[in-house]
Amino acid sequence: MQQDSFVAALAEWRAAVGCAFVETGQGALRAAGSATFQTHQSISAILRPANTTEVQECVRIANRFRIPLYPVSSGKNWGYGSRVPPADGCVLLELKRLNRIVDFSEELAFITVEPGVTQRQVYEYLKERNSRLWMDATGSSPDCSLIGNAIERGFGHTPYGDHFSHACGLQVVLPNGEIIETGSAAFPGSSAGPVSRWGTGPSLDGLFSQSSLGVVTRMTVWLMPAPQAFTAFFFRSEAADGLPALIDSLRELRLQDALRSSIHIGNDYRVLAGIQQYPWDETGGATPLGLEKIGGFRKRLSFGYWNASGGLYGTSAQISEAKRLLRKALAQRRGRLKFLNLQTLQLAKRYAGLFRMLTGWDMTRTVELVEPVLGLMRGVPTNHALSSAYWRKRCAVPAEPDPDRDRCGLLWHAPVSRAEGREVAALTSIATDVLLRWGFEPMISLTMLTPRSVYCVLSISYDRDVAGEDEKAMACYDELATRCAENGFYPYRLGIQGMGHLPGADAYRQLIRTLKSTLDPNDVIAPGRYDERPADDLRDPHRWMAKQRAVTTNE
Amino acid sequence: MQQDSFVAALAEWRAAVGCAFVETGQGALRAAGSATFQTHQSISAILRPANTTEVQECVRIANRFRIPLYPVSSGKNWGYGSRVPPADGCVLLELKRLNRIVDFSEELAFITVEPGVTQRQVYEYLKERNSRLWMDATGSSPDCSLIGNAIERGFGHTPYGDHFSHACGLQVVLPNGEIIETGSAAFPGSSAGPVSRWGTGPSLDGLFSQSSLGVVTRMTVWLMPAPQAFTAFFFRSEAADGLPALIDSLRELRLQDALRSSIHIGNDYRVLAGIQQYPWDETGGATPLGLEKIGGFRKRLSFGYWNASGGLYGTSAQISEAKRLLRKALAQRRGRLKFLNLQTLQLAKRYAGLFRMLTGWDMTRTVELVEPVLGLMRGVPTNHALSSAYWRKRCAVPAEPDPDRDRCGLLWHAPVSRAEGREVAALTSIATDVLLRWGFEPMISLTMLTPRSVYCVLSISYDRDVAGEDEKAMACYDELATRCAENGFYPYRLGIQGMGHLPGADAYRQLIRTLKSTLDPNDVIAPGRYDERPADDLRDPHRWMAKQRAVTTNE
Repeated sequence: MQQDSFVAALAEWRAAVGCAFVETGQGALRAAGSATFQTHQSISAILRPANTTEVQECVRIANRFRIPLYPVSSGKNWGYGSRVPPADGCVLLELKRLNRIVDFSEELAFITVEPGVTQRQVYEYLKERNSRLWMDATGSSPDCSLIGNAIERGFGHTPYGDHFSHACGLQVVLPNGEIIETGSAAFPGSSAGPVSRWGTGPSLDGLFSQSSLGVVTRMTVWLMPAPQAFTAFFFRSEAADGLPALIDSLRELRLQDALRSSIHIGNDYRVLAGIQQYPWDETGGATPLGLEKIGGFRKRLSFGYWNASGGLYGTSAQISEAKRLLRKALAQRRGRLKFLNLQTLQLAKRYAGLFRMLTGWDMTRTVELVEPVLGLMRGVPTNHALSSAYWRKRCAVPAEPDPDRDRCGLLWHAPVSRAEGREVAALTSIATDVLLRWGFEPMISLTMLTPRSVYCVLSISYDRDVAGEDEKAMACYDELATRCAENGFYPYRLGIQGMGHLPGADAYRQLIRTLKSTLDPNDVIAPGRYDERPADDLRDPHRWMAKQRAVTTNE
Repeated sequence: MQQDSFVAALAEWRAAVGCAFVETGQGALRAAGSATFQTHQSISAILRPANTTEVQECVRIANRFRIPLYPVSSGKNWGYGSRVPPADGCVLLELKRLNRIVDFSEELAFITVEPGVTQRQVYEYLKERNSRLWMDATGSSPDCSLIGNAIERGFGHTPYGDHFSHACGLQVVLPNGEIIETGSAAFPGSSAGPVSRWGTGPSLDGLFSQSSLGVVTRMTVWLMPAPQAFTAFFFRSEAADGLPALIDSLRELRLQDALRSSIHIGNDYRVLAGIQQYPWDETGGATPLGLEKIGGFRKRLSFGYWNASGGLYGTSAQISEAKRLLRKALAQRRGRLKFLNLQTLQLAKRYAGLFRMLTGWDMTRTVELVEPVLGLMRGVPTNHALSSAYWRKRCAVPAEPDPDRDRCGLLWHAPVSRAEGREVAALTSIATDVLLRWGFEPMISLTMLTPRSVYCVLSISYDRDVAGEDEKAMACYDELATRCAENGFYPYRLGIQGMGHLPGADAYRQLIRTLKSTLDPNDVIAPGRYDERPADDLRDPHRWMAKQRAVTTNE
């Protein structure tokens, strides 16, 4: 990029969004360029448009000067790269100021939002209106963008947990600066705009998720009416080899619709990291926490090898029936099944000691862990999970956690398995093996997001302030991604560290490339995002396009 | 198209698929060019490839000679154009011989099929294996293709009624002859291939539904485990203005997940056409059957102004609870709510007279109507609905109905409304007004396919052997489509008669055109299908592409 043409572009962007909203201060750019793992990409400016028209203008200017933009909503993509673009030299297009709630229906149970609208904002909005509706919250932070998470196909904890499956009517600024709306919302004054996904003709929603083909500036999210009653279940598996049977039992309950929501299963390491930081004292400062040591924590803190939880929703009668079916399905499994509703939780908090006497279950520490989980099952956002990013830090978790700033080390890899006990166990065993061998605790979270699929989130959690750990973690990530793929487990989502791991047959890759070079000939939107390119090309995004054009011309 | 180049193309196709599978006989071509309304497109040949490789070869040959192909699976797209392409001069690419069931899992509840696999075939396949799994069947014919229906985003009657939402892993032959697979199936040996829709990166499934961007040659369809118990409900609204409140009540039950499946609501005309042909005797041969006459049939045959039905699925306890919630929700509605399970149906058939004495409900004729409906609610395909295409015919419905052959007149228009009583009533009132004014009975079927949307199927049913009716029906269709769109009700699906009614903003249309001209530069796959073009261009498909290229070059 020529320096003088960049200066000219900045002048135009300033005219478009206002001087105050074009950031070029080195401190801010460095902060925006920091993730929870080592990155080398520099960010050359941050644009903060206020509305869709300004987004269009920013994109048009980017085309004129051929400078790539990297759109982020709230930018809280921890473990996957935070705000850092895959390619070097991008200008950040930060969409936080597009924070309007554009439409809402209590009867039809939907809300239409811009990308700057956060989970907290929607939660408060519903509360203010005494709405009967729940959002589905993702567990990372109340300040996450709804659109950012849904577009990345993130997930939550209620029956609406598959976020992208419960959204429609995208408004998209295309790479050429034009605006479209998708599905039924494509048509003027459409009655079904906020309620019907498919529309007429080819359905384009999917094109703009996990993609570099446009900037999503609006989306309708469906909300769930609060059920008449709610109960959570918790099952801890007390058999080291209990996972396959547990998966198979839960799949059956999901298929039969006895369980209606995502089911989460954390292994012992995952649960421990939710309760406390790394036990430096008990280990005398040594890492990792080996398999021989985790057993003590399981006993002391009352969790199992595998710890499943999920919400039951409906009328009292429906919940009673779901409890009966769960009890029956898990009767043969070695472990403990507990139900917990809000009333019991309050009681447990007040009378933990007495509760232990009566039930034999020590609730003291568990309450601390389950309270935010029960919240998430009811659409209450929490930042509780964020503290687990500080697992290996020597300092305490600060009041306002910021893993990017605090040099928390966190890399996520998220392969998907069919919901078959044998397969899921194969996956977790690969993960445990690789992570421990590289000196990291195998923290494994499994989400049965649909009746037939299990989304596995593997954390590589470390301290970026320890010399050599950045490199070791990335090497571990690479092996993990490779070993998983070799065994048929591909990620549902990629961080910027993994875009090079995007697999697929040649014709498929070529199709993605054709779509990209057709819709974004100047390569101005998020180059390298979910469109695999050699690492060299990401350091110089224009190189890739030039090569692409050469290929196309030769054919 | 040059005649000699067409002859050369035929020779290549014959070499590719075998002489026996290239049809050029005038009789067969004329039959394939017949729909349930007037069409002028001629078909120049029919290709019948046996497998995906042959499909690829057919597409490559089409590219070399620039001859457009029109892919059909079973071709039973009655009311929307049957096998007739939107553009003149296409070669039919018939996929019936691709009829393999490629994969099946009893545990994970899916089946992977080719486009020639019919509903009957899957139903028999499951029965032979004593499978606990149900398919979701669309009501038109057991000989419909699963893929054909799902790709058109058709629907059925169980909780899996939204077919395209319960399918994944498409194998697609692109217009350039290359093959891709979508979603998780894009990756070699993917564990999640048949169970996880989204995959990694942009999701492409939607691109290939209702589109001319590829030929779908394989798809995985999710199946539903048979519930422990099943009961159907029927509600007949006995108030002429009962629809809005009924819609609002049912929407709430759907949102609360008390009702888990599609709910169908037919108006009085729709129900009558399901029971018998046009009452020529009672009307002295006059048409249409006016609002003043339909009342007598309602009373005599025991149906209401609006007749809702749906299945209840689950354990006995879950069904009891659903019944309680339904009773409560409909208590204030003027009408009659009845439940019917298979045992009662058998009893009713045997003891219809006694049953009437006991319950006051005359089951004799109703049984005839409800038996296939109860079947559909349990995934049993039926061709019962097909006979209603003979509504206005003077002859009886033949043993092997074929509406194309028998010159049944049938045009469908299928606008979508948000599931709000007021809106749905506005839509049905427009439809009733337009249809009656043109001299057709307002047959209206409403499907609450998702909790928030109602798919309305409007039939224009007539006799093609009556002079002038073809033209009148088409004029009625045009007014209906226009009036609906003016009021915000856009179709979920278009027939070849309606491709010119495809609405949408300019940028959206341009995007669809760009995708088409990029992926299919020679315009060989289904030109004019869901890509709006002026009528003249459909008579000469190459004209449109030439114009498109001119537009692109000028920019």
